[in-house]
Amino acid sequence: MEGEKIELLSAVEDHHGGVVVHVEDPIDSTLFSSQLEASINNWKQQGKKGVWIKLPIQYSNLVDPVVKAGFNYHHAELDYLMLVRWIPDTPHTLPANASHRVGVGAFVLNNNNKVLVVQEAGGKFRGTGVWKMPTGAVNEGEDLCEAAIREVREETGIETKFVEVLAFRQSHKSFFEKSDLFFVCMLQPQTFDIRNQASEIKAAKWMPVEDYAAQPFVQENELFDFIAKICFSKLDGNYTGFSNVLTCTSSGKNTYLYLNKQDASHLFASKQGQA
Amino acid sequence: MEGEKIELLSAVEDHHGGVVVHVEDPIDSTLFSSQLEASINNWKQQGKKGVWIKLPIQYSNLVDPVVKAGFNYHHAELDYLMLVRWIPDTPHTLPANASHRVGVGAFVLNNNNKVLVVQEAGGKFRGTGVWKMPTGAVNEGEDLCEAAIREVREETGIETKFVEVLAFRQSHKSFFEKSDLFFVCMLQPQTFDIRNQASEIKAAKWMPVEDYAAQPFVQENELFDFIAKICFSKLDGNYTGFSNVLTCTSSGKNTYLYLNKQDASHLFASKQGQA
Repeated sequence: MEGEKIELLSAVEDHHGGVVVHVEDPIDSTLFSSQLEASINNWKQQGKKGVWIKLPIQYSNLVDPVVKAGFNYHHAELDYLMLVRWIPDTPHTLPANASHRVGVGAFVLNNNNKVLVVQEAGGKFRGTGVWKMPTGAVNEGEDLCEAAIREVREETGIETKFVEVLAFRQSHKSFFEKSDLFFVCMLQPQTFDIRNQASEIKAAKWMPVEDYAAQPFVQENELFDFIAKICFSKLDGNYTGFSNVLTCTSSGKNTYLYLNKQDASHLFASKQGQA
Repeated sequence: MEGEKIELLSAVEDHHGGVVVHVEDPIDSTLFSSQLEASINNWKQQGKKGVWIKLPIQYSNLVDPVVKAGFNYHHAELDYLMLVRWIPDTPHTLPANASHRVGVGAFVLNNNNKVLVVQEAGGKFRGTGVWKMPTGAVNEGEDLCEAAIREVREETGIETKFVEVLAFRQSHKSFFEKSDLFFVCMLQPQTFDIRNQASEIKAAKWMPVEDYAAQPFVQENELFDFIAKICFSKLDGNYTGFSNVLTCTSSGKNTYLYLNKQDASHLFASKQGQA
């Protein structure tokens, strides 16, 4: 490399003393390797800490050279891979990857003590005749109270208002090594005419709560049985879950706090739960 | 390939009509491409759905050929990349990647109304003089009640017992596009002598609760202020959070359910919260 001027990779500084490289144009992998090597030397001199490289999937030819330059994988989504290398000799303080998927189930009750239930077209309940509450995954960036409302709308056409989280469970190895948090939410229906829209739903209806609870799949499964009983305690007015209060973080972002608002009502007199 | 017998990749069937290939030995990337192509034809004939390929980072030379064979990234950890291709012509039903990191904060109070607090050696509170409750990330596969106990032990040497989740908040884009769930837990101390062990902790002490709450960083931050007030309501015996009940899933796995056990005490008379 004597006498040769190698262009450095363009990078954006992050808030933790590191830099992020977004590869956005095709580049020959040998040329990229040289630029990366020169850039690492430069970042070392500058005292940079974590170096992140975001590689869109169309540049998969660059994965091997980046790994050969001492990078590890950090996380990936369908269309990109994020790699990282810690430059200093000190132990790294890089953030951990996302470890959990988050799901919601919606307990929606009308004025006739009927609960909103669905039959799934696929999955493990396919063809079992089981009627279950609408459930679904919380998207990245989505509030769980909003996810519950969205899932009910998608699966039944019913519009609802979030009331509270009745309970939640955490489970492990639900998907390869990843863990899972599942929130059972109580929602109040604002409309009552069912319009089944989602292709994954075979049928939807309002079902008497006693019939729901009497299903063998509920009675024989300790977890479902508990959840059904909590829902019924709620029905009788004898149970308080966690409701949502919109607050503000130190960086000015809106964020929902979930808590026992009934017990803490004196603290939140001026706060609106719904945004 | 006429007349040539190409070996198929060895794969394990999953529970969703798909297969998983674990690459465990070095292989030439051209040979791997041929074997992958032949295997895909074979899986198509067999009516397989999702095909997963787990590539340890030492085989990063195979990433490009796998992507060229029509695979997408699915998720990655430091030492491996998981790629996936949906074989049928129908819309895919592949599980979403993990979307959330999960953190815990521990509110630990002794018999003299003093709360266990730490000063962090790094991060955004470095050098601010702020005393905060011990916090940390929940590991993949770790119960959040156990994570709170572990973090307190690592940061202060204090042994504790989990009491309940007082509140939780969800925030977004906390780390690239990933979301974040943070659970404030109340723990009961079983020992009282502080031994500061973790390198990320500068100091730890028992602090009068009034002094903790009077800190400007708590008073000026709506979220911290709320959380402090909830903790004080708890102190006065006027607040019930979610405690943990060990239950069993339909597949026989132990799993913690978190709920308002006080309100649901009649349902859980026979259940022990602590495993």
